[in-house]
Amino acid sequence: MYYCMAKLIFVALLFCSFLSVSEQQYTPDWTSLDTRPLPRWYDESKIGIFLHWGLYSVPAISSEWMWWNWQGTNPVESIVAYMEKNYPPDWTYANFGPQFRADLYDPNEWADLFAASGAKYVVLTSKHHEGYAMWPSTFNFNWNSMHVGPKRDLLGDLAAAIRNRTNLVFGLYYSLFEWFNPVYLQDKSNNFTTQYFPETKTLPELRELVETYKPEIVWSDGEWEARDTYWNATQFLAWLYNESPVKDTVVVNDRWGSELLCKHGDFYTCLDRFNPGYLIEHKWENAFTIDKRAWAYRPIANIEDYMTIEELLKEVVTTISTGGNALVNVGPNMHGKIPPIFQERLRQMGSWLQVNGEAIYATKPWEYQNDTINPNVWYTSSQDNRFVYAFLLIWPKDSNEIILGAPLSSSRTIVTLLGSNADSVPWRVASGDRGIVIDVSAIKLHLLQSEWTWTFKLENISG
Amino acid sequence: MYYCMAKLIFVALLFCSFLSVSEQQYTPDWTSLDTRPLPRWYDESKIGIFLHWGLYSVPAISSEWMWWNWQGTNPVESIVAYMEKNYPPDWTYANFGPQFRADLYDPNEWADLFAASGAKYVVLTSKHHEGYAMWPSTFNFNWNSMHVGPKRDLLGDLAAAIRNRTNLVFGLYYSLFEWFNPVYLQDKSNNFTTQYFPETKTLPELRELVETYKPEIVWSDGEWEARDTYWNATQFLAWLYNESPVKDTVVVNDRWGSELLCKHGDFYTCLDRFNPGYLIEHKWENAFTIDKRAWAYRPIANIEDYMTIEELLKEVVTTISTGGNALVNVGPNMHGKIPPIFQERLRQMGSWLQVNGEAIYATKPWEYQNDTINPNVWYTSSQDNRFVYAFLLIWPKDSNEIILGAPLSSSRTIVTLLGSNADSVPWRVASGDRGIVIDVSAIKLHLLQSEWTWTFKLENISG
Amino acid sequence: MYYCMAKLIFVALLFCSFLSVSEQQYTPDWTSLDTRPLPRWYDESKIGIFLHWGLYSVPAISSEWMWWNWQGTNPVESIVAYMEKNYPPDWTYANFGPQFRADLYDPNEWADLFAASGAKYVVLTSKHHEGYAMWPSTFNFNWNSMHVGPKRDLLGDLAAAIRNRTNLVFGLYYSLFEWFNPVYLQDKSNNFTTQYFPETKTLPELRELVETYKPEIVWSDGEWEARDTYWNATQFLAWLYNESPVKDTVVVNDRWGSELLCKHGDFYTCLDRFNPGYLIEHKWENAFTIDKRAWAYRPIANIEDYMTIEELLKEVVTTISTGGNALVNVGPNMHGKIPPIFQERLRQMGSWLQVNGEAIYATKPWEYQNDTINPNVWYTSSQDNRFVYAFLLIWPKDSNEIILGAPLSSSRTIVTLLGSNADSVPWRVASGDRGIVIDVSAIKLHLLQSEWTWTFKLENISG
Amino acid sequence: MYYCMAKLIFVALLFCSFLSVSEQQYTPDWTSLDTRPLPRWYDESKIGIFLHWGLYSVPAISSEWMWWNWQGTNPVESIVAYMEKNYPPDWTYANFGPQFRADLYDPNEWADLFAASGAKYVVLTSKHHEGYAMWPSTFNFNWNSMHVGPKRDLLGDLAAAIRNRTNLVFGLYYSLFEWFNPVYLQDKSNNFTTQYFPETKTLPELRELVETYKPEIVWSDGEWEARDTYWNATQFLAWLYNESPVKDTVVVNDRWGSELLCKHGDFYTCLDRFNPGYLIEHKWENAFTIDKRAWAYRPIANIEDYMTIEELLKEVVTTISTGGNALVNVGPNMHGKIPPIFQERLRQMGSWLQVNGEAIYATKPWEYQNDTINPNVWYTSSQDNRFVYAFLLIWPKDSNEIILGAPLSSSRTIVTLLGSNADSVPWRVASGDRGIVIDVSAIKLHLLQSEWTWTFKLENISG
Repeated sequence: MYYCMAKLIFVALLFCSFLSVSEQQYTPDWTSLDTRPLPRWYDESKIGIFLHWGLYSVPAISSEWMWWNWQGTNPVESIVAYMEKNYPPDWTYANFGPQFRADLYDPNEWADLFAASGAKYVVLTSKHHEGYAMWPSTFNFNWNSMHVGPKRDLLGDLAAAIRNRTNLVFGLYYSLFEWFNPVYLQDKSNNFTTQYFPETKTLPELRELVETYKPEIVWSDGEWEARDTYWNATQFLAWLYNESPVKDTVVVNDRWGSELLCKHGDFYTCLDRFNPGYLIEHKWENAFTIDKRAWAYRPIANIEDYMTIEELLKEVVTTISTGGNALVNVGPNMHGKIPPIFQERLRQMGSWLQVNGEAIYATKPWEYQNDTINPNVWYTSSQDNRFVYAFLLIWPKDSNEIILGAPLSSSRTIVTLLGSNADSVPWRVASGDRGIVIDVSAIKLHLLQSEWTWTFKLENISG
Repeated sequence: MYYCMAKLIFVALLFCSFLSVSEQQYTPDWTSLDTRPLPRWYDESKIGIFLHWGLYSVPAISSEWMWWNWQGTNPVESIVAYMEKNYPPDWTYANFGPQFRADLYDPNEWADLFAASGAKYVVLTSKHHEGYAMWPSTFNFNWNSMHVGPKRDLLGDLAAAIRNRTNLVFGLYYSLFEWFNPVYLQDKSNNFTTQYFPETKTLPELRELVETYKPEIVWSDGEWEARDTYWNATQFLAWLYNESPVKDTVVVNDRWGSELLCKHGDFYTCLDRFNPGYLIEHKWENAFTIDKRAWAYRPIANIEDYMTIEELLKEVVTTISTGGNALVNVGPNMHGKIPPIFQERLRQMGSWLQVNGEAIYATKPWEYQNDTINPNVWYTSSQDNRFVYAFLLIWPKDSNEIILGAPLSSSRTIVTLLGSNADSVPWRVASGDRGIVIDVSAIKLHLLQSEWTWTFKLENISG
Repeated sequence: MYYCMAKLIFVALLFCSFLSVSEQQYTPDWTSLDTRPLPRWYDESKIGIFLHWGLYSVPAISSEWMWWNWQGTNPVESIVAYMEKNYPPDWTYANFGPQFRADLYDPNEWADLFAASGAKYVVLTSKHHEGYAMWPSTFNFNWNSMHVGPKRDLLGDLAAAIRNRTNLVFGLYYSLFEWFNPVYLQDKSNNFTTQYFPETKTLPELRELVETYKPEIVWSDGEWEARDTYWNATQFLAWLYNESPVKDTVVVNDRWGSELLCKHGDFYTCLDRFNPGYLIEHKWENAFTIDKRAWAYRPIANIEDYMTIEELLKEVVTTISTGGNALVNVGPNMHGKIPPIFQERLRQMGSWLQVNGEAIYATKPWEYQNDTINPNVWYTSSQDNRFVYAFLLIWPKDSNEIILGAPLSSSRTIVTLLGSNADSVPWRVASGDRGIVIDVSAIKLHLLQSEWTWTFKLENISG
Repeated sequence: MYYCMAKLIFVALLFCSFLSVSEQQYTPDWTSLDTRPLPRWYDESKIGIFLHWGLYSVPAISSEWMWWNWQGTNPVESIVAYMEKNYPPDWTYANFGPQFRADLYDPNEWADLFAASGAKYVVLTSKHHEGYAMWPSTFNFNWNSMHVGPKRDLLGDLAAAIRNRTNLVFGLYYSLFEWFNPVYLQDKSNNFTTQYFPETKTLPELRELVETYKPEIVWSDGEWEARDTYWNATQFLAWLYNESPVKDTVVVNDRWGSELLCKHGDFYTCLDRFNPGYLIEHKWENAFTIDKRAWAYRPIANIEDYMTIEELLKEVVTTISTGGNALVNVGPNMHGKIPPIFQERLRQMGSWLQVNGEAIYATKPWEYQNDTINPNVWYTSSQDNRFVYAFLLIWPKDSNEIILGAPLSSSRTIVTLLGSNADSVPWRVASGDRGIVIDVSAIKLHLLQSEWTWTFKLENISG
């Protein structure tokens, strides 16, 4: 029942966020662009899935940075050694192309998994620094998934499957630069005084992507290499906000020029795996990986490399408490399958969100993010301030009481535990009048509907 | 500390089991062969790892039966369709050979994982029905891992790594027949009146395997095709028991001729995934798969296809309670990696055995196997009858008491819970004098050292 | 000795042709461009080698048009059937890339062969309609011989080897359009009102080629698709003639826009295999193939598909007699070898030119091209008009006399046969006073230095 | 017309040779086997085609000995270097398997070519020292053309095509040993005191070949490794002569045991490219290669490596003059095509035999083989002694007379030149009464029907 309601609310909110964006025109400068309000759907979604999938999913070693780590400025010895052991000396990265078959790729299966994970949006790498396009790009002849390897519009097929699920929004990652593209390297060796690459590649490709696939997120990357003026970023964004088919709903990140991280864009990403631990006023996003050492699928990874569900939920909860969205990354393999270990984590997250979703979706940070006494407790608040949600990361081993330092209780205060059958949980005012002490002695953990990161819902409380 | 002791005991037991096997000579008939006592190490080990790894680990679809399902008597439509979609019409199974690279194969990593899983022995498919040999077989020219694909003695390297861990025993699976070997098919079309295949292939290869790698287990398969007289099985076993380098320690299963299942051999396997639910007097083994639908690695598998740890432990506990050993199967991939989902299950099993191992290793079935009242409770007993172990598969959601129908208590009866800090658990005699009622109201599940399949240790009890 | 002299003369002529080209500046229109005198070296060279080598040298069937014949507008049934029989359904043309290894490529071996063939220049396909670049093009990321396949600057290595032989000039073929390049197809679907492709691809690539490899020939192709204004052809040529590093020596053909064939350019090509049989006043070239059915190497070709040496020499002689140069095409294979059958023809031509070269190199058409009576006789003249050369294609089977209708003899007329030991050949005035009758009764064919297409050298003769 | 007659005669002779072989039974010893008369068809055929085709046709370098040259006892440096440059370090020879596609293989095209070449029989390598079988051998699981690579009975399809041409006989080459077959190496390391390999491999395979494909020639090889007793050669031959389906017509060579060359068998081969220059009384065969440096196709070969037609005809003529048959070897490539340079040589030989065949087929050596005066002249004789044929390898450059020392003329002696229109050629008795002097002053070479190796037919002459 909750789920059904959630869907309706979600659709309604998406619709409202469309309306709320006026017909204002933006000029191609940050002052103007920064005035654009954030489309509401994005903040309310809280959790997205990040997909790193590309030709880099073929080599068994390293990650999406395989090409660079192999043949870039400072090659990684182990990767060079692996290639020498397993490939002919004249092997090239592009030679991996025909091995990328995506023979088990079923975008509907993916979309069902993402829906079950409780995520509200999906961001696919349309093209990473290697330059290989996951759609039949007009500007990437014979270096895209239609011309080499799968012979399929991998991106378009996923977009369609995602759009077919009412609860999911489709977005795209796009790398502005390409490590080894000679046109780019020419600009670079010209100290970025020429703009051959953005003019003939980046901007036409970005427009093609937006016009063809109408992504609600444009997740830029690789911006660090040059200033936004080189990339013509503000012109692109002005077009995106003023004229593009997604002008009212699209959100973009902050990666549009060197030294711009955490400064502009609909949401900040700052650093990879950014999770500051304190409230950031501007909307931000924590993109992090379940495989702690890579974004792309790595056949070489072991179970120790993967987050446990507890680690994953901690990352989600701390992010959302401090104003961020969590963008949870998984790496499909060259067959086009999302390996079972990722499926398990996503489904575990989904089962947790079934129980605890009301403390996540469409909430806002509370006055306190992390409890003042208990470091394992993080907070969110309902939009109407009626409820405060306290996430408990670790159940106490040595006590029947959980002491929260931040909440100021009243006589009308009620504490419940999400996923519990009990109507409420007993509590009392902490000594010194600030904070509350929750009595968990009667709670049987094995009877709860969820087994990690418990959520106490505090009604009629202030900070 | 337990682990250290366990190792010493294990080694000691292995040594004793060597001594206990006398210098008796066996004649090549079942009457004589059946008199051989089971080497003790095998029964005491209880848990092994089964590995299905071969050229069948290359195709992304189906299982170790891929070749047969594709081109055998009754092709599976989905596999035929997959091959038509992804390969040229004249593709042959042997053409997969060069794609089998085992480029990430690290047998020491495997051995560490198996040791951490708590298993005591490992059984690798030396050659499955496809006929591809995982060692440089003298009798399989250009159809083995040294001549095609990895260019490596995959089997020998694993044998060495396993032997290097004191706690692990090395064994081999071997398929007597080969689906498409023309020499075999000739015998078959001769109604098995000729024995070209066993004479020139099966028996020479088996001897080579035993003499070269000295496996403590010879796990035969494919026997159903013909009678033991065709395979010359009793001659081989007489040699194995009388003369081979492993004559004192080796154990074999029951698959040595059609209609012989569950009749002869050191241990019975009866059927794949055999788990009868009641006590079998003769030693037996339950070989089962974590991927519920296949023995070999299947890139196409989803998380639903894998056993949860609860399902896995249920299989282990019910097997051992009824006199069996559990042979837990995992499928390495073509890179030579054991995929993370398998690693996770094996490590979960290992953490469980760290706590509950005393109720498993070197135990024996108790008078009762499954409790008479509580269907979720299964029993083992210590060899000296001092302790009975009751495994509880599901913790009761609606009660603070666990009622056991089988145990007959005394005044000296003590109940403890493995992995608990508490000295003992309160109990009382059940109504009607038979059975006991354990009071679990004071137990905090989250404080226990293990979170699945709890073991109550009952001291001074009778059945 | 002749050869040594020939080299010196050749170098001298090349030098002179440099001087003869003034420092005139051309404007980007045909009126101005057409005023440029033809660099002399080109006319004097007479014979060149054409090389069709590219990714199309990989598929075993069809020709350099394989991709188009397979997947273009009107697929060729036999090729579609071949691909269906031998490749997976989702195979792409670019997937052939890694199979192109050029593992036996030795450009010095090639250059030695071309020198031995008597040809004076070499024209390599830098990029054909497939778009694959045979050099590390800045504008063809991952679709060139450095990024996919050979990992080598195939073109640059040949240029260096050719330049290392004093007698050979290096030139390049370049296709203006690319069948399947989406940027080109965009312009095309815009009815060529946009010029994305020439601006970002064709022109930058042509400049890079000229500046890097300094070809003395730019042999354009694929021009038929659009007008010269779309290709910006006259701008390119003005740059090539005014500013490029080869401005004084370069020659170009006539393929610079639809409907321009046989109208502009340093030499006309008109049609493939153009050989009109009559004198063309403007310099022209006959590009023809030894494999009569294809330009690229075809593994499927049989011996009947290859020209005999007699056919080849007939093509050469008739071309040069009528003012053309002969561009003899051979197709290297994917290993980078020129197959033996081509080597044989080229070496046969070389042995013929050793004997008959003086009637070819640096000659000019005579007043008559084809004899008026004997259709098997063709003429050239020395530049100083002192000698007329009569090529006899077929030695008469039924007569001891060869009647030539065109020459007007005088008392000082001397007839010799190239490659003969005899000082002269007897002759008499033909009946009717015009023409001469050569008496060949005393000539022993097996004693001549060459066995095909005999050259009579006529001194003091007029037309 | 000649051809039509030739066919009829050929068939008749074949039939007669069947009848002429009696029903005698041979015992398995050389004394008995050596009594078997040579089936007439073989001696009368004179010319055969040898085909070296196998997996060794895939690697671009070396020859049919590639595997041995790469990984045998004394690796060839250039081949090792080539493999290191072009393949991964763990590449195996068997990994070449899937690259062998035979995608252009048309056995009817081959058979037409062989018929056109004038050869009367064809010998295909059924299996060379590498061990790869070109038919679906029962005893070579997954190392034959049906299981790896072409997925086709290459041998059987050729046998059918050859049999479909009345003028051609089908034969097989077979290597008794295999360089790297571990079963063989076991026997070898046992100093050939064991016979596992002949018992389980060589003999069963030979019988399968004979029974399935009924070859009229069994061309054994690799015999040098061990004595005939190891190979059980005489037993096999007794079966072949007494019981096999080809018992009346089959011929075998002399390679059946070390130290047996030139001693036993229907025809001797003695050495590769054996051509002694003098008469050998026992029937023999000169197997030689058009590519002078290899039997298998070598992509690396240049035109200099191939025999000219003059060299080829010299080899044929000198062989037949001295009692041998000529077995002309060509190497098909991995596509299953016979490269054009081989086609050219075979068709040239065919055109020569059209003119000169009567001096070859069904002839016998004359009293003299090589002329006593003119070293460029070789002789054959018609069976009825009516004609002597004198082959002239080089036409004299400096004389109008050809002096033959061997023939003793009479008044009825007539000299004609095959392929000439003239009824006869003038001659006179040489000085000293022995020998004749042929006056060739009136012969126009370019009017003859053939241009190499001229045949003078001498009627009514003695030696």
